[in-house]
Amino acid sequence: MEADLVLRRARLLTCAPLAEEKPRSGHAAADVGAVADGWVAARDGVVTATGHGDGWEALERSIDARVVDVEGRVVMPGFVDPHTHLCYAGERWDEFAARRSGADYLAVLERGGGIHATVRATRDASDEALLALLRRRIADAAVAGTTTLEVKSGYGLEPEEELRQLRVIARARASAPIDVAPTYLGMHALPTRHADDRRAFLHEVVRTVRIVAEEGLAEAVDAFVEKGVFETEEVRPVAKAARDAGLALVLHADQLNDVGATEFAARMRARSADHVANASADGLRALARAAIPAVLLPGSAFFVGYPPPDARRFVAADVPVAIATDHNPGTSPLEGMPTAIALAVGLCGLTPHQAIVAATINAAHALGRGARTGALVKGRRADVVVLETDDERELAYRLGARLVAQVYASGRRVDAA
Amino acid sequence: MEADLVLRRARLLTCAPLAEEKPRSGHAAADVGAVADGWVAARDGVVTATGHGDGWEALERSIDARVVDVEGRVVMPGFVDPHTHLCYAGERWDEFAARRSGADYLAVLERGGGIHATVRATRDASDEALLALLRRRIADAAVAGTTTLEVKSGYGLEPEEELRQLRVIARARASAPIDVAPTYLGMHALPTRHADDRRAFLHEVVRTVRIVAEEGLAEAVDAFVEKGVFETEEVRPVAKAARDAGLALVLHADQLNDVGATEFAARMRARSADHVANASADGLRALARAAIPAVLLPGSAFFVGYPPPDARRFVAADVPVAIATDHNPGTSPLEGMPTAIALAVGLCGLTPHQAIVAATINAAHALGRGARTGALVKGRRADVVVLETDDERELAYRLGARLVAQVYASGRRVDAA
Repeated sequence: MEADLVLRRARLLTCAPLAEEKPRSGHAAADVGAVADGWVAARDGVVTATGHGDGWEALERSIDARVVDVEGRVVMPGFVDPHTHLCYAGERWDEFAARRSGADYLAVLERGGGIHATVRATRDASDEALLALLRRRIADAAVAGTTTLEVKSGYGLEPEEELRQLRVIARARASAPIDVAPTYLGMHALPTRHADDRRAFLHEVVRTVRIVAEEGLAEAVDAFVEKGVFETEEVRPVAKAARDAGLALVLHADQLNDVGATEFAARMRARSADHVANASADGLRALARAAIPAVLLPGSAFFVGYPPPDARRFVAADVPVAIATDHNPGTSPLEGMPTAIALAVGLCGLTPHQAIVAATINAAHALGRGARTGALVKGRRADVVVLETDDERELAYRLGARLVAQVYASGRRVDAA
Repeated sequence: MEADLVLRRARLLTCAPLAEEKPRSGHAAADVGAVADGWVAARDGVVTATGHGDGWEALERSIDARVVDVEGRVVMPGFVDPHTHLCYAGERWDEFAARRSGADYLAVLERGGGIHATVRATRDASDEALLALLRRRIADAAVAGTTTLEVKSGYGLEPEEELRQLRVIARARASAPIDVAPTYLGMHALPTRHADDRRAFLHEVVRTVRIVAEEGLAEAVDAFVEKGVFETEEVRPVAKAARDAGLALVLHADQLNDVGATEFAARMRARSADHVANASADGLRALARAAIPAVLLPGSAFFVGYPPPDARRFVAADVPVAIATDHNPGTSPLEGMPTAIALAVGLCGLTPHQAIVAATINAAHALGRGARTGALVKGRRADVVVLETDDERELAYRLGARLVAQVYASGRRVDAA
């Protein structure tokens, strides 16, 4: 066993899988696998071993191996942010002051504001301008401890423009210091041009799903299922096209109203069901049975002002819970998974340890990477965060503090400027 | 006019005083005094001039003058944090998970938990240990843009121990890179030893106020006026002692219940009335008449889980509004004034500009420094923050982002490590 990186004398949180390779729910939802005086070793960007005490000394080390004494600090899996809309131009701060409730948000949408303002600004941005913005946001996320980051398209609406944005995301991904998981958000809002012909638009989306798959531009297809936006039956043909093309399905489900999208997500074997603040008890049961993660997004509840999802309902129903920043310019401009953890604890009622599981191994499952990252276990990517503290609960409570001291993505330090 | 520091090509927010040297209320509450293509010049730590365009070129510059082109970024007064409890040892994260409502908080207090846990840990910490903790917290605040910082004692309860903590604060203050305003929180909770003799305790506090004043250990005396803690009539003799000794009075007023503490604060000409989430309409009118700032503390509302103060009530009633972190280990562990601004906007309903006024000039008034800092005006301390952005509203919305790029306290750069 060889190592080129050893982090030792850590309070080590492995978040190691328990019996099965499944996202965690129920009692396991808060098990971070803490090891006192722990260490983790990696070689070529992959975890080779973990342990406690002096066991690391027995490892064969490469000649330039770095052995870092973290002096009791927390060492844990890098954060996985499974839901972001980072590919955009323009800000909409004026809208924030005017809008304080969920109802208002739908009203803004109907007036052609909201997302449409971002659509215009993003369309008007050149590839290079959009790429520069996206790269800066990815770098900011990495410094804050995110080592796996989903990025959706979705501000094109028109399929051609969605493809352009996905190609920009592909360029950012190719040079990113962290793992970027691209998603084609094909059904975010109906483009104005198709206002009178929803079917034609859906046909185009189906056709685009195939192009996206052929060009390898995304791993999943996403749709915003909500009253006044898209219905589950409109998603069905797109979901089928995604499955046929080998792409996963994810859904913006029951964010503002219960429209049955959570049950639908379970029925369609979605990779995750996101938002779900208003999911019914049936929806929760369906997710639990299918072991599909619910991705809770407290940021948009905080900024839009609707009641945050009650995480305790999901934990009680044995639904695996993940969390994400939902970083986007319209409803959730918050930054960094530590902020998402603090809001998930403060607003949604997760415990700090549940929130850490939700931000690592369960979030990895929400991106189809449950066996690749999200846990410090032999064979997984060496995605590691070192905190400034010896108590990981500070992530939940020291809102605004800079707690992430070091970040390694596939074993490479990425936080230094 | 000579300058040793010029920050130019800024979106300059002066927060300059309007007609009178008073904290801002009503329509003026949102006036940040924005100047396009602005500049600010300082010499020996004091602002010498501000302007726009190339006017700075006419200044006589010292031989080693630094002229910084901020390329359109926001330059604004350093933040003033007028309410913190930074002098403590020990954390109480266990308590956070257990406690989710205001009622629970008072129940915890009655069981001898809550503040009493911090009192024990702080008493048990040596002067040197406490000083090291306090210095680190002051440095963290400075990096986050705070250039004037109130620090209360209050975890001694027993007057002798309060004096020890105030002496530790004095040592931290003497070496601090920013301006520290010490407060003697003499009436935080009744010490156990005095449980059966409140009068004896109050006598001791009165005696201690005189010692504090003689030794120059604090600028103000604070008391927690709340159901089950202290009553206004118990504060009266202490307030009188403070006035006689030349110290200001500040109050934790009507945080969880309306106990008439806000009117009392106005009647006693307090320097500020803090928390005031449950202040009555009469209380607001009294503050407005006396032009006394209400210091709103959204952090404790967020973490304890009680309804946040509705800032719009205060603005409508012409009360000058200030905000603070309330950084403390029991109810508000949040860090940095940008976080307080984001919560004040997201939870209390301030606009971004109102929150900036509340975090600068009005907060300076809340510390009796309304003529010395909090605004970029000739003759004031050169306490300056440069943001990473050209839009100060991002302070309100990019929760968790690192927006503070440079910090100058009395003209000296303090953010670099």
